[in-house]
Parts: sequence; structure tokens; C-alpha cells
Amino acid sequence: VPIVVLGPGAVGRALIGQILAQRERHRSRLGVRLAVLAVADSRQAVLAAEGEIEDPQLVSLCEAKARGEPLPENGDVLGPDDWLEAVDELADVAPIIVDTSAADTTAVLLGARARDWRLVLANKVPLTGRYSAFAMLTRNGRGARWETTVASALPVIATLQTLLDVGDPVRRIEGTLSGTLGYILSRVDADIAASAAVAEADAMGYLEPDPRTDLSGLDAARKALILARMLGHPLELAALSPDGLYPAEWDELSVDDFRARLPEADAALAARSVAAREEGRVLRYRAVVEDGAVQVGLAALDPRSPLGRAGATDSVVVLTTEHYRANPLVISGRGGGPAVTAAGVLGDILSLVRDGG
Amino acid sequence: VPIVVLGPGAVGRALIGQILAQRERHRSRLGVRLAVLAVADSRQAVLAAEGEIEDPQLVSLCEAKARGEPLPENGDVLGPDDWLEAVDELADVAPIIVDTSAADTTAVLLGARARDWRLVLANKVPLTGRYSAFAMLTRNGRGARWETTVASALPVIATLQTLLDVGDPVRRIEGTLSGTLGYILSRVDADIAASAAVAEADAMGYLEPDPRTDLSGLDAARKALILARMLGHPLELAALSPDGLYPAEWDELSVDDFRARLPEADAALAARSVAAREEGRVLRYRAVVEDGAVQVGLAALDPRSPLGRAGATDSVVVLTTEHYRANPLVISGRGGGPAVTAAGVLGDILSLVRDGG
Repeated sequence: VPIVVLGPGAVGRALIGQILAQRERHRSRLGVRLAVLAVADSRQAVLAAEGEIEDPQLVSLCEAKARGEPLPENGDVLGPDDWLEAVDELADVAPIIVDTSAADTTAVLLGARARDWRLVLANKVPLTGRYSAFAMLTRNGRGARWETTVASALPVIATLQTLLDVGDPVRRIEGTLSGTLGYILSRVDADIAASAAVAEADAMGYLEPDPRTDLSGLDAARKALILARMLGHPLELAALSPDGLYPAEWDELSVDDFRARLPEADAALAARSVAAREEGRVLRYRAVVEDGAVQVGLAALDPRSPLGRAGATDSVVVLTTEHYRANPLVISGRGGGPAVTAAGVLGDILSLVRDGG
Repeated sequence: VPIVVLGPGAVGRALIGQILAQRERHRSRLGVRLAVLAVADSRQAVLAAEGEIEDPQLVSLCEAKARGEPLPENGDVLGPDDWLEAVDELADVAPIIVDTSAADTTAVLLGARARDWRLVLANKVPLTGRYSAFAMLTRNGRGARWETTVASALPVIATLQTLLDVGDPVRRIEGTLSGTLGYILSRVDADIAASAAVAEADAMGYLEPDPRTDLSGLDAARKALILARMLGHPLELAALSPDGLYPAEWDELSVDDFRARLPEADAALAARSVAAREEGRVLRYRAVVEDGAVQVGLAALDPRSPLGRAGATDSVVVLTTEHYRANPLVISGRGGGPAVTAAGVLGDILSLVRDGG
């Protein structure tokens, strides 16, 4: 099965490592061999000279990217306009394009779909642009998977997809969808200043280069939007107004100025955490999709509720449907980390090919 | 997509009803049409005269079975030796055989697999006979699904399958896998006699005709065996010794005699429940698969643990793997009922065909 990997970042490199390490398992369990035909970053694509990129070259390519170098040349090196066509000529059957980047890859992905390539996305950005692109990329899950765009590899998307396919009406989706904010709020709950918790999260590699991606609620809002769109609501990202953990006018600052001013926001968040505790509640960053509306923000929750009792770095999603009404369907567990996400992406690829496709 | 339904019991009839009711959804979302070619019970099969069984005939066939009557004739009525061949001649492409019965259908299912039919099972019996039959029927999930054999439609099997495919080592599986025993233990916990709780469960339709199927732990043991076999352990059912809720020698009694003597077992179970509560614990019927061994039986658990805090009729499964080590993957929710199970079976069928297969 030919594979094209977009975005050789931490997740993409972990994915390539797992593909190489698990080859024998894929063969013996599923009779499948995943062959990497091309690896592309935002500037260019490296294509196999013929057949597939050889394992040693894949390894050295990943090592170069890990050192911050550009993609090394292998066979052909092509810009984004040319490489879809070149890969199509190289492949015997339509490849699976796997997007582990965090860039706006909508154009290239739509080009791949127009060529009937199958799609696996860990990248939320192309699914949270225009609704029409979401519909064209996902096609209700026909030849497409995007499990790790929400709660990493936890089986949230696959489960929701099945509920939608069988026609069990989904009444409400509630979840803690940001491991980063979950961690920060757990530290604030332990009376650590929010800015210090942000620094800790940064040191552990949880944060984007611009921490506002998480702290503004944008990342959680993108996940909630994907869930809402799956339910058939043609919402746009601009219509969502997630609670940020800092004053909105700080969006105008440079990243350095933003980081410098962050301690000014500590007192307000600490006060909300204390107020929640005084009511016997716990502060969580929650997304709710219900009645066609999306709410993303801070909520003081019952500590015995599924979201309230979850560990700091757990993601939790609660699906309330006609069938799961009195006893909602709850999925929880570790919701992040490059190796876990890469395993989820690999699971999506194998799910597409398991039945001989 | 041609479908053959084995076992027009409550689940099978609910499945046929959902197939008919959701036709437009399947067409518009997935471009799929499910056509019922044959319905078989343990004595015979009714085949479509040509193409598929017409909707009104499907409905009247289900109505007849619901009244306890035999399958009415439609086109051909054939015994088990002849109908696989007849269906193969009738179908353009290999059908999906869907087993919602509770009988030992191993022979007919192996025949279907030998003809390269795909397989969806809600029936635990053929997966808990000889290990070699399990392996031939399931083929690691290639062209086969059996989600509802464990915890009804909760996405336990699909999730475990993905973890196994990607090579995330599964260290431990723990779950409450019997809604019936969960209900009975919750009533005992409320100081209701176990025999009275069994009568309640019976009145709600939770029990098999012979209540020992549940009360012996056999049903839970079959589920645990399916999970253990998926992990690669070639165990046989006879090697498992689940805790029964009554003395083992009562297995020799007639069903009526068994029911008459059931109150004699009340005191022992009440004492275990009281002892658990005195230790601040809660009594659950638990299955554990770990280190190649399976344990199925009563356990006094922390009420804050995933299994301890679950509602009486919830099923809960906790998967501990290399990736989900500190934060295990937990799936919980309603784990039974014909409509929920039928929806899970339909989800399995659509999962097989979603990608154009």
C-alpha cells in the first residue's frame, strides 16, 4: 500500500519509525505492506526513485528533519504543484496521503482527493477551514480517517462515525479536549501560578511555539468544530468564541511580549480556581456540542462527573445519544504525545486497508 | 451489499428493522445499500426468489418469528447443507453473513469463510469453541467484525483490534462484562436478596431461559476468552473457571429445580456484599486478562476505580497498554439491550463496506 507522508515533524517521524518497526506484524496479521513513496514538508517533496523510499533513506531523512535541516534529496525533489502528479505516476494504486503537519494543507489535500487518493489526517487545520472543504475531504469517512485530530488516538472519531452511520441520534458531546490546558488547570488547582504552569508545560514540549494556540482555546475550538461538523452542523471557526486564559487584546502582542505579560493573568485564573473549589467543584476546560451550538471554555464541574474526575493529562469525551441516554458512552485516557498520536495515525492507515482495500 | 442474517431473534429482528429504516442514510452518507438475501434460523433458511427479499416479506418474516412461529416460506426454503451454495449462486458478490443467534453456528460460519464471505458476529458461541475455529473465523479482523460479542456495541473490540494492529503491547484488560450480573450485584448491594434480584432481571428480559448461563459466569467467561484469544493466547473455555453465584453441583439440576433452590444461595452472596461494604469497597463481577491468564469472578473493588464507580447496568473496560500505561484507556456505557446490540451489528456491517469494499 503506497503511503505519502506530509509533515515529517515529531508525529510524522514517529509514524515512519513505527511503520518500519512493525512491518512483520503488518504482514503476518493483515497481509499488508506499507510502502512510503514520498515525504513532503511545506516547501518540497522527496519522492522514491522507483517503488518506494528505501528504509535507510527514510531513517536519514527523519534524522535530518530532527536536526532542523531541510529534507535531503533522494530521488526527485519537487514543489507542491508538481509532486501529486509525479506520485500518481509512480504508484500502481492510489496512495494514502497522511497529513501529520500543522500547516494549512487544504489545497494539496483537495488535489489528492480529486485524484481519489485516500486520506488520513492528524492535522486539524484543513478540517477547520471552510465547511465545504471539510465535506470534500472527509466524505463521511469514505476512504478517509481523522481519528487523531480529536483527543489523539482515543477512539472518539471512529466511535462517533459508527453512531452516525447507524443513525443513533447524537444529542450531546462533551469533552476535555486539550491535554495542555488540562495540565495547566491541574497545576492552578494545586495553587501554582498559571504562568509558571505554562512554563512547565513548555519545558515538557506540550506547547506550540506560540503558546496562544492552546491558551486562547483555539486548539480546543478546532476539535469541537470537527465534532460539530461531523454531526452535520455547517459551522465556521469564526463563529466559535472560546474562552481564552488571557485578555483578548494580548493577541496583538509578539510572542515574546505575550510571554512577558502572562503573569498578569495569573490572579484572575487563580481566583476562578479558588471559587470553584469553595463550591466543591473543579475547574476544567470543556467543549460542549449540543443543539447545533458549540461552547468552549472554563467550567466548574462536579469532581465526580466523568470530566471532573479525569486525571490532569487525560482526555475525556462523553457521547449522549438515543441509545446511550441514561448511560452515556464515555471514552477516556491519555490524549496526547507524539508516539501515541503516531500509533493512532498508523491505526487509521491500517483501518483503511485491513479489509483488503 | 448482500447480507445473510443468521438468527431472527430479538437482535436479528431489530437489525432488520434498522436496515430498513436507515436505507436512505446508508445511501446518502456512504453510497451503500444493504440487501437481505437470506434469513436463516437453526432449522432452515429462507432465500430471496431473486435479488433480495422484499421489504414487506422481511417484515412479515420478523413478525412471524416474534410470534414464535417458524420462518414462513418465501422463495426457497433450504436446510443448512444446501443454502450456502444456493446463496452463493444468488449473489453477485460475496455476501456478509451476520450471526445474531446464540447457537453453535461454527460449521455454517466456517463454510461461509471457506467461500470467502465476510463475517459479522454478535454470537459468542462460535468464537469460544476450539481456538482453531476462532482463528479461522476472525482472521485478525480481515473481513470480519465481532464488536457486539463483548460489552454490546461499546467500541471495545474495534479499539483492541487497532491497538493490536499498530503493535502497542496490551498489558492488561479488566472489565465488568455482564450487565445481568452487574444489575444483580447492585440489587444485592441495596440489600435485596439475590434470588429476588434474579427474578427482577428475568422480568426485564435480561436472562437467558436457563439463568445459569449468566449466574455461572459462563457468559462473562466467554467474553473474557474472546479478549484473551485476540491477545494471541490459544486458551480453551474449559481452562477458565469463573466464579459462579451458586454451588457448582446445582449445574446438575433441571432449570425449574435450580430456580426453586436459588434462595438457598442468597445468604452467601449477601455476606460477601456486606463484607465488601464494611471494607469501604463494592462487589463487582470482574474479568481480568493479564500475563496470558484469565480470571473471571467476584471482586471487592475501590468504589472510585473505573469498575467500582460504574453504574449497575454499565459495562466498563479498562485497557492498559504501553502507550496507555499511566493513563489507561477506559470505555464505559450501556452494554446491552437488543436495539443497542443491533445498532452495533449494523455498525460492524457498515465498517466492512464503508471504504467501498
